[in-house]
Parts: sequence; C-alpha cells; structure tokens
Amino acid sequence: MTLNDLETPALVLDLDRLEANLDGMVQSLQPHGVALRPHLKTAKSATVARLTRDRGARGIAVATLKEAEYFLENGFTDIQYPVCIVPSKFDRAARLIRNGAQLEVIVDSLEVARSLARYAADQRVAFRVYLEVDCGEHRTGFSAADPAFVGAGETLRDGSHTDLRGVLTHAGHAYSCTDPHGVRAVADEERQAAVIAANVLRTAGLPCPEVSIGSTPTARFGESFEGVTEVRAGVFLFGDLFQAGLGTCGHDDIAVSVLASTISRHPEEHRLVIDAGGLALSKDRSRVESAPDSGYGRILRIDGTALAPTAHVAEVHQEHGEISTRGIPELQDAPIGSRLRILPNHACMTAAMYDRYHVVRGTGTEILAEWDKTTGW
Amino acid sequence: MTLNDLETPALVLDLDRLEANLDGMVQSLQPHGVALRPHLKTAKSATVARLTRDRGARGIAVATLKEAEYFLENGFTDIQYPVCIVPSKFDRAARLIRNGAQLEVIVDSLEVARSLARYAADQRVAFRVYLEVDCGEHRTGFSAADPAFVGAGETLRDGSHTDLRGVLTHAGHAYSCTDPHGVRAVADEERQAAVIAANVLRTAGLPCPEVSIGSTPTARFGESFEGVTEVRAGVFLFGDLFQAGLGTCGHDDIAVSVLASTISRHPEEHRLVIDAGGLALSKDRSRVESAPDSGYGRILRIDGTALAPTAHVAEVHQEHGEISTRGIPELQDAPIGSRLRILPNHACMTAAMYDRYHVVRGTGTEILAEWDKTTGW
Repeated sequence: MTLNDLETPALVLDLDRLEANLDGMVQSLQPHGVALRPHLKTAKSATVARLTRDRGARGIAVATLKEAEYFLENGFTDIQYPVCIVPSKFDRAARLIRNGAQLEVIVDSLEVARSLARYAADQRVAFRVYLEVDCGEHRTGFSAADPAFVGAGETLRDGSHTDLRGVLTHAGHAYSCTDPHGVRAVADEERQAAVIAANVLRTAGLPCPEVSIGSTPTARFGESFEGVTEVRAGVFLFGDLFQAGLGTCGHDDIAVSVLASTISRHPEEHRLVIDAGGLALSKDRSRVESAPDSGYGRILRIDGTALAPTAHVAEVHQEHGEISTRGIPELQDAPIGSRLRILPNHACMTAAMYDRYHVVRGTGTEILAEWDKTTGW
Repeated sequence: MTLNDLETPALVLDLDRLEANLDGMVQSLQPHGVALRPHLKTAKSATVARLTRDRGARGIAVATLKEAEYFLENGFTDIQYPVCIVPSKFDRAARLIRNGAQLEVIVDSLEVARSLARYAADQRVAFRVYLEVDCGEHRTGFSAADPAFVGAGETLRDGSHTDLRGVLTHAGHAYSCTDPHGVRAVADEERQAAVIAANVLRTAGLPCPEVSIGSTPTARFGESFEGVTEVRAGVFLFGDLFQAGLGTCGHDDIAVSVLASTISRHPEEHRLVIDAGGLALSKDRSRVESAPDSGYGRILRIDGTALAPTAHVAEVHQEHGEISTRGIPELQDAPIGSRLRILPNHACMTAAMYDRYHVVRGTGTEILAEWDKTTGW
C-alpha cells in the first residue's frame, strides 16, 4: 500500500521528520536539566505519545478531557490538563482519576479552587492541582500579586483531597513575535513570571514542587530554564508553516501533510482543483504573513519533495482547493488524478480533522503504518 | 436533561428555526415548480435529511463519499455527489451503487468521462452522470462552448453503463456579493449557464433530462428557475453569520450554535474566557465584514436569546475563546461556569467538528433529542 492507493484527502505523517523534531527538542532541553512534557493536543495520538515517552518525556499534556480519556485507555497515566477546569467538568475528571489517571488540573480563581477542594473532599477523589499564572498573554491565569492567588493555594493545601502541585504558565503571546529575538524576550517573561509566582507561594509557606512553562516557540528559543521543572510544547512534533514563519522549524522539518488528488484542471486558465478544501486543510490564515504567500498551504510532490516555492493552495471551499499553476510547469501539466501533498498553515487545526495518520518515511511513499488518533470533545 | 447538564463545548440545534428555514425554502421554490435537492454537506445528519424528505425534497446531495455511505446506511438512495469524481474514487462509488444507491456523480473533463464509461462497462455498474458546467465561479466545470463538453456527453451516452442525466452548476461566486441585488444577477447567470449548456447537449442530439443548479444565496434570491429541474442548497437549513451578512437569513433564523462554558474571568480587564476556541467554533473569518465585528461568532444567552449586538468572541486559541465584556454588564458579571451560545460565522465549518446535535426548540433549554451526524472522509 502506497500513497497512490489511499482515498483522498488523507493525513500523512513523515516519521523521519517527527523523530528528528522530537530528538531536536529533547537534545535542546537536556543541558538545562528540565523535563519535557509534550502537549498531545496537536498529535492526539497514543503512538506519537509513546515515541515521546521512549525518549524520556515526562508524562503528557492534553487540551480536552476526551483526549485524557483516550490516552488513559492507551496506558498513559501521568496526564496534565492545562485548561482551567470548571465545576461542570469535575465529574468527568474524577472518573479519570478513579480509573487510574494521575490527572493534573489547573485553576485560575479562588472560587474554582474552593469548589474543587469541596468536591474532592466530598467525593474522596484526590486531585493534583496547579495554579495557572498569566505571564503576559492575558488569556487565563492569576496575577501572582493578586491576594486570591495565595488564597487559592491555601485552599488547595488545606483541602483533604487536593494536592497543590505548583504553578503553570503558557506564553501564547510568543506567537505574536516575528522573529527568534522577540520570542527570546517572551521566553524570559514566561520563565520569570512562573518563578516569581512559585516564590510567592513558597514565601507564603505553601508547597510548590513544580514550575511548568512552555510553548513551542519559547521552548525552542528560551535561553534559561532556571527554576523551571518542566516544559510543555506540542506543535514542535509536527511543525507547520506558522512555526516556519516564526523560525522554530524549516519547511523541510514539517512532518504532517494532507494528501490530495487533482479533480479538475483548466490549463488554459492556469488552474488546478484538488479534493482538499477548507475542512481538509483548515481555513486558519490567522498568522500567515509570509512571502511568497502560502495561502491555505504549500504544495509538495507526493513523495514530500518541494515544488516551486510559489506553489500553494490559493483558495478553499468546503471540499475543493484551488491552485494557480502559472509558472509551475509540473502543476500546469499534471493530469486529473495526480497526487499532491499540502503542508498545513497550522498543524493543530489541520490534524484535528482526521481520525488517523498514514505513516511514511522521508521520500518513501509506502505506507508503513496507520496510527489512530482521537478527535472532538 | 437541559443545556445546563451538557459537557461543553457542544453543538446545539434549534428545531423551530430549522423547520422554519426549511419551510421557507420549500415555499419559496414551490411557485417555480422546481424541485429542492437539499445539500447535506452542512448538516451531515440523517434526521435532518428525513425532515427535508418529509417536506417533499427530492433526494439529497453530499460533498464526500463518506457522507454518501452514511446516508445510504440510513435509508437514503437518491444521492448526488456533486464534486468531480476521479478514477481513484470509482471503486468506492461503485460499492455504493452495488449496495443500492442511485448515486449521481459529476465530471468536468473528457478524460474522466472516458475513464468512467470504460470502468462502468468493465464493472457492469450503472453510473448516473452529470456534466458540470462553469457558470462564472471558475472553480470546476466545463465551458459549454468547449467541444470536449459535447464529447464527454457523447462518451457517456455511448457507454453501456453510463446514463447521462444532464447538466449541473453551482454559483459559488454568489458569496462574493454584498447584497441581494448582486446575488440576483449571479442567480441569473447560474440559471442561464445551465440552460444554455442543456440546450447545447440537446442540439447535439444528447439527452438532458436534468438541469441542476444552486447555492443558498441564488436559491433564495433567484427570480426565475425556467428550464431548471432542481435546486441544490444546504446552509439555508441552518443559516450563519455569513448568510446573515448576505441577507439570506436574519440572526434570529440561525438554527445552530455552540454551547460553551466560561472557564476564566478577569472583570478588571473586561475579559471572559470560554471553552470554545478555534476547533469548537472554526477559525473561518473569510467573509466576515460585518459591523459590529462578529469576530469568531456572536454570543447568545443559554436560551438562545440575543445579548448586546457587540457581544462576540474576539480571539480564539485551540480550545479557548476570548470575549471582551466591556459595555456588556451581563457578561461582565457572569460567574465562572456560566453558559453561553455562540452563533457561527460559517455553519458548514463549525458543524463539521461535531459528531452530534443537541436538539432544543426556541428558547427552551431542555434537550429534546440527540441526533447523530457524520464527519470526515
């Protein structure tokens, strides 16, 4: 079975690139003595998670409780859910813990800390809890200067079934940077905010064994991890065109792509149409400011080798993608049924649409494995 | 069970609005004596398809062969797949036909018409085939003036197992219009292109019993359907903010919404964060040019009633959505765990992320039914 035999659209994963991306991150963090907790929100795959475990990763992070359930079913127990939990999700989280997960949850308010401490005691289910702090993204998280921050810590310490694990932050604003220099500054903010918050807890006599930070850009470009115990990062496993724009990877490092077939051609108008549209590629254009424009994704040959740098999907409809073939003879002459691969703008959004990966290595088109993954909520 | 008991994010369908949208389209097409073939690419739900059948719809259209398989399993046989078929999909389509589907496929090239005629004869599987024509969108479709158009028709007529059903077109360029007046002009182009193409076939002595056109905007605003046998439209069933911008529906007609919970609040910074982000809402902003800006979706109360017109999701991350509460006291004061509903920019992209609908009626929050749907490829 090769990429020529697959139904299209389909999601292709280049294992050579995935392994190289993973090794790169492991090696880059090693001298800092900081643990890697890979965020599986991008890959959503137990096989990918096992690869990270085999290379010494410390547990995993997930973005939904459904992902947590999937990974627990696949034998992972050290699972962090770094999205603020709310009371309506306590029961589902408690089920995970009763079923064997060492689930770590986060809160960013005194009121949820109190609800959780009460709930955990009432249910006699032990929750591991982090306090989320805001390091400048201004999305979620306490300010460490807010008295509610220490108050929440005390509440969790005092709870009979809550274990205050430490502080956690995420420098999502690194994605607004335009170069590694900017990311480095944000990485420093991220680390400092977490370390300062940890010290606020410790000064107040509270335990804070863990200091968890991370994002792919700050994990990649951070210069110091002093005071940090673990780094979370996810999209680095795959890379994508946004990441390439930020400089965290090159185009040749992007491990995931969408296999598509040409379904209509209009050479006189220099147009091709493929069966990968807004659903298959995602419509995420939020941070695309590259030159040349990569549209809804860059086009590769079926073997993953690069075509002209201008080869991109110019427009998408639900199940159609439009490509301009002007100046690209190989596309201009491609017959109907030709197969192409598309590098995604944002791997998290694209991979989320699929329930499996078709695994290849390098320029090979033989499908070496099919890996399941989870989707949805 | 009410909307307060659901895990979030979740997809909510207001049956009152769905029925009204469906009745409106049926009544609007009735005087023209033209059949409605609902496009189920938006709803992807057998229960929704049955509602359309109960009101006299003629078969269905789908955007993927997986959707065709799902609807066949649910008892639908008159299934049109109006996306250019290619040889690598012949086997899957043939399986559908062998399993009882009266599958209609489309081609827009002489080469695929020839391949299909050969394949159908070799396999002894009868394919119903339309020739797609381009009515000005310049995505897919023959020009009726191209000799290959009649050539493909002859090939299909001459095939022992291909039945030339007629011509089909889609005025996707109606979505570039900014008002009903513009859509009317495009609707006229769409109808004329199809009727002219049908006459080209007939003049050449070819059969053309069917003339299929359609899109939600042109179905809604078209003034004449003379010479047309069926109209395809899909998103009209749900409506969305793009459609409201085009005038094909009002905000109060939008039947589908995403239920979300507030998971973090920062009243001093006038911010709320919900557990519906780029995956739950989709990141489709492609045609949003409304005032006030609807961001990644407009916010309703849990009962579907409107909040301030400025209440919208301003920013999304994978599983987080950010809302500015400035000037909206009801949001500014909303505690963590509050539930909101978000009207989508583009219902097709948003609904595609979910595997079921939670059905309510009007301002009721009781969940009257759970309807399954299909996803993916």
